[in-house]
Amino acid sequence: MILITNDDGIVAPGIRALVEVASEFGEVLVVAPDSPQSGQGHAITLNTPLRLRKVNVFSGIEAFECSGTPVDCVKLAKNVLLKGKKIDLCVSGINHGANASINIIYSGTMSAAMEASIENINSIGFSLLDYTFEADFEPSKYYVRKIIQSVLNNPMKQCKLLNVNIPACPLDQIQGIKVCRQGNGTWVEEFQEGTDPRGEKYYWLTGKFKSYEEETSDNDINALKNKYVSIVPSGHDLTFHSEINNLKYLENI
Amino acid sequence: MILITNDDGIVAPGIRALVEVASEFGEVLVVAPDSPQSGQGHAITLNTPLRLRKVNVFSGIEAFECSGTPVDCVKLAKNVLLKGKKIDLCVSGINHGANASINIIYSGTMSAAMEASIENINSIGFSLLDYTFEADFEPSKYYVRKIIQSVLNNPMKQCKLLNVNIPACPLDQIQGIKVCRQGNGTWVEEFQEGTDPRGEKYYWLTGKFKSYEEETSDNDINALKNKYVSIVPSGHDLTFHSEINNLKYLENI
Repeated sequence: MILITNDDGIVAPGIRALVEVASEFGEVLVVAPDSPQSGQGHAITLNTPLRLRKVNVFSGIEAFECSGTPVDCVKLAKNVLLKGKKIDLCVSGINHGANASINIIYSGTMSAAMEASIENINSIGFSLLDYTFEADFEPSKYYVRKIIQSVLNNPMKQCKLLNVNIPACPLDQIQGIKVCRQGNGTWVEEFQEGTDPRGEKYYWLTGKFKSYEEETSDNDINALKNKYVSIVPSGHDLTFHSEINNLKYLENI
Repeated sequence: MILITNDDGIVAPGIRALVEVASEFGEVLVVAPDSPQSGQGHAITLNTPLRLRKVNVFSGIEAFECSGTPVDCVKLAKNVLLKGKKIDLCVSGINHGANASINIIYSGTMSAAMEASIENINSIGFSLLDYTFEADFEPSKYYVRKIIQSVLNNPMKQCKLLNVNIPACPLDQIQGIKVCRQGNGTWVEEFQEGTDPRGEKYYWLTGKFKSYEEETSDNDINALKNKYVSIVPSGHDLTFHSEINNLKYLENI
């Protein structure tokens, strides 16, 4: 059983491409948000009830839309729809837009995959470096197929989560795959300020990504710049291990 | 300048306790959500505009309520309200309820502090192990004061983020401070299923936390069980570094 989700919503072209590829490998279940949920990170819905509605949007494929976040979708799939059933793999995406570097933190697509990985399920988040609705997912499907096949044949042991980003270019221009670390970067943000029809001020988030690293570093940002598919083995332990000893003095303040 | 935020909303007793302590150290600015935002993780608001409203809820303290998520609050504070001004410290909380172990991923309180740490600002998230509105924050204030003072006197260099959890007990029962790693655990979830007044089915998230580790492990879960304040130095690099080499075979599939 392969569980499929995303953060762009159940009608996004990216999840359709992922369903097409994943269903080549056996039984699949789709549980995805009923509206776009980009930037939802690891949000869960605590204060309101959730809805699940069976929908017929992928020919011959069981699919549900959910009123909650991408992480809610995974929790509902595991605990309600597939209760007690083994999930061999969870795939999330294909996201419209990059989730390399720090974007893993903000991404609903990656957080959904991470949620499954926390439950010891092999999980992969796929993203294409084209955020438009009209993005061409055909070249991506070649690599998505190869990576799903490989993980099904060799389930991961320690690390349970892969963050896969795919350059937006024709297949014959993609240079191959790089397994690397998360690049260090951030968003340089500005807020577009405006006044609404009632005369009240508003702020709307916008910004540009900036890498903190040199162009030769072995990270996902540079792999993608050089037209490689990047794969970052990822986890959910946020401990800054090398600093535990340096900060032990806090025990004596 | 100390920036103060939280995820329980600007009128929660926990942020009031934090404002009282932090303002002993100099100028502060409060920017917090206008409604409870527990479980919002690292969510940001992309598709709708944000509102900021100046409010007078802390005597003599500049404060704004924000319509967005905890991470939005930090981004607006840094880029709009404090544009170009140095932020010496960002403190988030005091959260009503634990943010130890895996909860750092789901927590709006910790994500707000993490957002500041991504911008190289020394940041601390504080949480009390009592999720009720009536929680007693007096014992916490003693440790919050000590930790803020120490970080202001010795700004952190490598690691910029501390996850501080405080046992819910009288001050004389707290055993001290442990600097340790994030414990490995998860939520064992159930969904409460019901039928709404219109006859439609709903699902409401509930669950119990379960530690995967032994009671002797040196982690935050066990520190708290033994009535220590836990401090976990934390970061935002999710790479599973030790697995990069093991997964290099994916470059040749």
